[in-house]
Amino acid sequence: RGRFADHDGDSVRAILETATKLAEDKFASTAQIVDANEPTLESGRVRVPDEVNIARDAYREAGFVGAAFDYDDGGLQLPVMAVQAVQALFTAANTSTCGYAFLTIAAAHMYTQYGTDEQKERFMRPLIDGRFFGTMVLSEPQAGSSLGDIRTRAEPQEDGTYKIIGNKMWISGADHELSENIVHHVLAKIPGGPPGVKGISLFIVPKYILDTDGNPGKRNDVHVASLNHKMGYRGTVNAALNFGENGGATGYLIGEPHKGLSYMFHMMNEARIGVGMGAAALALAGYEYSLGYARDRTQGRPLADKNPESQPVPIIEHADVKRMLVQQRAYGEGAMALCLYCAKLVDEMELAPSKEERKAIESFLDLITPIAKTWPSEYGLAANHLAIQVLGGYGYTRDYPVERIYRDNRLNPIHEGTTGIQGLDFLGRKVMRDGGDMLGHLTAQMGETAKAASTDERLSEHAAALTDAATLLTRTAKALMGGAQRNSPEAALANAPTFLEMAGHTIIAWMWLRQGLVCQEALAKGDGRFGASFYAGKLKTMDFFFRYELPKIHHWSALLERIDTTCHDMSTDEF
Amino acid sequence: RGRFADHDGDSVRAILETATKLAEDKFASTAQIVDANEPTLESGRVRVPDEVNIARDAYREAGFVGAAFDYDDGGLQLPVMAVQAVQALFTAANTSTCGYAFLTIAAAHMYTQYGTDEQKERFMRPLIDGRFFGTMVLSEPQAGSSLGDIRTRAEPQEDGTYKIIGNKMWISGADHELSENIVHHVLAKIPGGPPGVKGISLFIVPKYILDTDGNPGKRNDVHVASLNHKMGYRGTVNAALNFGENGGATGYLIGEPHKGLSYMFHMMNEARIGVGMGAAALALAGYEYSLGYARDRTQGRPLADKNPESQPVPIIEHADVKRMLVQQRAYGEGAMALCLYCAKLVDEMELAPSKEERKAIESFLDLITPIAKTWPSEYGLAANHLAIQVLGGYGYTRDYPVERIYRDNRLNPIHEGTTGIQGLDFLGRKVMRDGGDMLGHLTAQMGETAKAASTDERLSEHAAALTDAATLLTRTAKALMGGAQRNSPEAALANAPTFLEMAGHTIIAWMWLRQGLVCQEALAKGDGRFGASFYAGKLKTMDFFFRYELPKIHHWSALLERIDTTCHDMSTDEF
Repeated sequence: RGRFADHDGDSVRAILETATKLAEDKFASTAQIVDANEPTLESGRVRVPDEVNIARDAYREAGFVGAAFDYDDGGLQLPVMAVQAVQALFTAANTSTCGYAFLTIAAAHMYTQYGTDEQKERFMRPLIDGRFFGTMVLSEPQAGSSLGDIRTRAEPQEDGTYKIIGNKMWISGADHELSENIVHHVLAKIPGGPPGVKGISLFIVPKYILDTDGNPGKRNDVHVASLNHKMGYRGTVNAALNFGENGGATGYLIGEPHKGLSYMFHMMNEARIGVGMGAAALALAGYEYSLGYARDRTQGRPLADKNPESQPVPIIEHADVKRMLVQQRAYGEGAMALCLYCAKLVDEMELAPSKEERKAIESFLDLITPIAKTWPSEYGLAANHLAIQVLGGYGYTRDYPVERIYRDNRLNPIHEGTTGIQGLDFLGRKVMRDGGDMLGHLTAQMGETAKAASTDERLSEHAAALTDAATLLTRTAKALMGGAQRNSPEAALANAPTFLEMAGHTIIAWMWLRQGLVCQEALAKGDGRFGASFYAGKLKTMDFFFRYELPKIHHWSALLERIDTTCHDMSTDEF
Repeated sequence: RGRFADHDGDSVRAILETATKLAEDKFASTAQIVDANEPTLESGRVRVPDEVNIARDAYREAGFVGAAFDYDDGGLQLPVMAVQAVQALFTAANTSTCGYAFLTIAAAHMYTQYGTDEQKERFMRPLIDGRFFGTMVLSEPQAGSSLGDIRTRAEPQEDGTYKIIGNKMWISGADHELSENIVHHVLAKIPGGPPGVKGISLFIVPKYILDTDGNPGKRNDVHVASLNHKMGYRGTVNAALNFGENGGATGYLIGEPHKGLSYMFHMMNEARIGVGMGAAALALAGYEYSLGYARDRTQGRPLADKNPESQPVPIIEHADVKRMLVQQRAYGEGAMALCLYCAKLVDEMELAPSKEERKAIESFLDLITPIAKTWPSEYGLAANHLAIQVLGGYGYTRDYPVERIYRDNRLNPIHEGTTGIQGLDFLGRKVMRDGGDMLGHLTAQMGETAKAASTDERLSEHAAALTDAATLLTRTAKALMGGAQRNSPEAALANAPTFLEMAGHTIIAWMWLRQGLVCQEALAKGDGRFGASFYAGKLKTMDFFFRYELPKIHHWSALLERIDTTCHDMSTDEF
């Protein structure tokens, strides 16, 4: 439809096939090398292994950097859902090498909405073409999640530019020699502006200042202070950057002064869905790997087989190994479904016929974005824990990819806002501020799926469970809103991440029931595309989620409804 | 009492103080170095960093290797509970450097029961003195957990020795130059013996064959095949060993032929409690570190404070950070209490006045050993996950110890039997085999604690919850035993790790209520030793466990009681 009318299922499948091949050839094959050879800083220059260069070239040449952008901007005008699916394939193969391209795409995307024509021409186009790489520069050593406290300042110059001066932290892709230029997108305060988050502006600060032809020229006053040495994600350089040690780095304001945080949040909302998608992709990478191992590795015998001389069986035949595999799949495919659903909402926004409809979709997406970021991150990591467990001692060694995948995925509950912060965002900002209206929209959607499933004998048990869960979610939200008034907002928000987890489990159950409907429809039609086992396996994984996971919401709900303040009441000297 | 009459609270506290100082000076200070410089294999020789040597010397010189052994054997005759507490301190400081000593202690301990006088003289004494280091050699590449399938063979020689030939895997401390000799304790099969686990014998295979004076002489035919490169625990060499590539390694039988596995299990039972203790120690190390960070790090403001120019507060004041700290403490101190309780049972066995009483304690300890191994391993790691979360991005870097602690602790759910295997051991072997008798003993003990707590207003809520939990545990066990008969053992055991988790949560709640009683008693007596805040904090952490954790058993119980076979029923082609 509309902007995406040129694409259809076949064309997207062809793109996914290309992406799969490239992800296997250039990304999966180098993941271990990139992990074992993290970036180094030598005389102020950051070195990354050559494999990152090779992967970058392949990705760029296939046109994936610009996939989501307009034809006019050099892009493929692909729906975000397809782009996210492509990115998931690369992430599953080698998440830390993807960082450079994904950051560049996110940064370039910001210009489509807030950049001037000149900024688009000089910065966005080279980003989309993959000649320049982009970064997002938010945190400072004294201000991680608390952006209102940043101190980096931007002093206006007579020529309309700014001098940027300050120290920044946690910059992914901060420095390297992979691209002709690095374009930093920096939050800073213009002196004299309002305090806190309302005084933050956004600036373009290229590593090399562009000459009049748009080519990188003079070195700008931004330099690496030190590299961060991480548990995983080692292919992506992460560093502290100093701006303006020699008088000030030249920067260009994006949009209006003091509105930088809202621009950055626009980008971060997409980044949050991207984090969730990445975590889901790693969950499934671990699942696929441990599944292959469990099929090949023989050990032990069925419990009933007491003959020590009989042949050992593949470990996939042991009940506990099956459980660890189903659980990984339930988490991974559930999380993936949610993230693709969010991506679809982004596309629906694009296609919305009116501003009001667009706004309605946007509010709904805003509601579930903290869940799409957090649930896959926490449960994707839990899945990777199980992938290691399936391999046993081998899973703990660096000879098998599940070890690296687990370390890589450990970042996801942290970056783009920790689980604790997402919990506050979800309950405090998204659910409470509109008095539960958007949450009502969500539970209404769940109700429709449940209604459709209730007439199917195979699904009716779960349809009823989802209906109950949605009712419980509504009731719990009301209790929390009541508690915020009766007790205090602090007390009601004290277990915000638990409420997010409860809502997350309910949403993932919904996603599984939607998948169940698709399976039943396909089976009824005798659709043999993926084979009967595929659908049977999907349906049983759905069963698992409804039987092993969804019932946990009752405990969480009880805790939340009584506005439990056990932790909140601990005084700091009691620790 | 008895064997331990020379020791009392004061003397043990003095030993713990010495251990604390040594753990800080020689172990904590080198943990990062040892982690960053894992062992290397150069021309067949394994190199470990010098820091391991320094730590080894300090530990040995303080007499800690022999702490648990008889005075006659050169030991300090300390109760196991005190020894475990000492080991916890060293583990918290630097778990991977401890591996050499702990393995040596465990190996030496085996001789006290199964060694001949000559074997004690030639091998046990140098192990206790710290001149020789010991290993346990069980697994093979094709047989990890399935020891009945090992292929290493021991061929009897005319002089009464054996030639050992085979390939072994996952040997901690397999090779190094830290000690004068390495004494391997190797499981192998004497040709012609029974198949499976009933044909396994245990052999002493020194790296250097001893001369008549007991000094290391000729090199034995055992060599490193390759090193394993692990996620964590990097200070401890772990390798594959080849025995008998040049005709056969000389080995000496321990005890009788074909009884090796039972001897090894004796050692492994203690090792399992040690694993749990190590995991608990790492949970608390992460807790302490993240607590210190949360007190120092300022960021953000209370929710009610809307002034962006007010001073940021220490993050410990945020409700979610408090929750992450209380949760870590609840897991860590609960797990530690259980492991110390198990160690106390080992001491009580030693002191038991009759063989029957000794046997009764042993059976009870056997019941809870798989829980003491598994619950701390899984929940200790969950605690470390939260420690990283408290630090945010910093927690993901190798500049802060929580990152290493998390990687180190990841081993604990794997070695000495994975969580899945412990689940089968607990439900299949320990609970079902005696028809629930020992489980009844456990719930009776819980009942006594609950009764004592029920008359205390502060504790009565939790006393009632523990009583209910114990009843539910009994009912669930009965349902599982019924299911094993009615359905099949496979179906009843399909969720064995969930039953272990349920029993684990119930036992940890019991441990917390015991701690609650001690706190109340101390407060009533006006005991100011640790200060009022200490007891208040303990009691609130107990509250946390009873309110946030224990209620999870209801979901698990429902799943288990209906003999859920969702995973078990997945056929392998449906994955």
